[in-house]
Amino acid sequence: MLKLFYSPGSCALASHIALEEAGADYEEVRVNFVADEQRGAAYLAVNPKGRVPALATDRGVVSETPAILLYIAQSFPQAHLAPLDDPFALAQIQAFNLYICATLHVARAHGKRGYRWADDPAAIAEMQRKVPQSVGQCFDLIEREMFTGPWVMGDRYTICDPYLFTFAQWLEADGIDPARLPKIIDHRRRMAERPAVKRAITAEQA
Amino acid sequence: MLKLFYSPGSCALASHIALEEAGADYEEVRVNFVADEQRGAAYLAVNPKGRVPALATDRGVVSETPAILLYIAQSFPQAHLAPLDDPFALAQIQAFNLYICATLHVARAHGKRGYRWADDPAAIAEMQRKVPQSVGQCFDLIEREMFTGPWVMGDRYTICDPYLFTFAQWLEADGIDPARLPKIIDHRRRMAERPAVKRAITAEQA
Repeated sequence: MLKLFYSPGSCALASHIALEEAGADYEEVRVNFVADEQRGAAYLAVNPKGRVPALATDRGVVSETPAILLYIAQSFPQAHLAPLDDPFALAQIQAFNLYICATLHVARAHGKRGYRWADDPAAIAEMQRKVPQSVGQCFDLIEREMFTGPWVMGDRYTICDPYLFTFAQWLEADGIDPARLPKIIDHRRRMAERPAVKRAITAEQA
Repeated sequence: MLKLFYSPGSCALASHIALEEAGADYEEVRVNFVADEQRGAAYLAVNPKGRVPALATDRGVVSETPAILLYIAQSFPQAHLAPLDDPFALAQIQAFNLYICATLHVARAHGKRGYRWADDPAAIAEMQRKVPQSVGQCFDLIEREMFTGPWVMGDRYTICDPYLFTFAQWLEADGIDPARLPKIIDHRRRMAERPAVKRAITAEQA
């Protein structure tokens, strides 16, 4: 059976929602970041990168959110979570999810995990200070150029939607005025009403 | 016809090599970073993110290296650059390419593009100082945990190989001692001998 390793309040929520949308049979395994479990030997044997999410399958572990999301879409084709046989349409989905992963998420990580890229506390504080601006610019670009509507890719709900939703939840905490992002906020509201999203959030908060 | 927008000495080389390996018919368009062309209106109309690579197709533009690489593999299936119909094997390829994109490339970007995440010159210098360590840790993890051999994913050459090669070229420039990475260095040597790699490098240096 699939096992999703997650931490509450992390980007693992996107994979969690996708598993729910797919109707997958899976187990949830909470990794306790407060106790630094992600750096312990037991978890490093699952994911040597020491990060969540990780999805254990009967053939081995898949890591990295865009990889997990495509894996779920491909493993549960009846859920139609991605246009698997259309290289261009799939590439658009990938490009969107890559932008969240490698630009938006990275910008946000400078708020709490600046130690990855600098040792000096003053430099880390300076990175933290810039988060509302750098993350805000990512959301502005998504709002202006990348979001089609009503779902990220247009008429069809895809693996881009839970990933955007996961980060949109944290807009206010990241110091970004949601009023400037009407499409993203409307999307966030509609996402929060979906049963799969409610189930994933409830499970993580339990 | 496909058009690859690239800048010499950038990660666009990975897509360039993949197009050559696929036997694709494509045009190369150089974006002049010295003249800041990537931030000019003409290029922003191609890729609003202002970055390379971008691959223009007859249906629109694909950005983000792992998305472009999968697009090439899926568009030229006869080149067998990815196990497209095996969700787990494809997820392993994606996870590898995502790690390069969102962790290794990001770590390296703190060397020259620290302004993305901080304004203070002292903080930017401090990020730059840590690059050999943070990028080195990524390569250590690849060498120890992720590289199967003889190619990244094992017996079969895939879209992971040109992406790893692109970054392995810069090891010495990034202040990393190649002696600690024997598998990656052997891979780099074998990659450099491939006709497709030679053609892509020659085109970029022309």
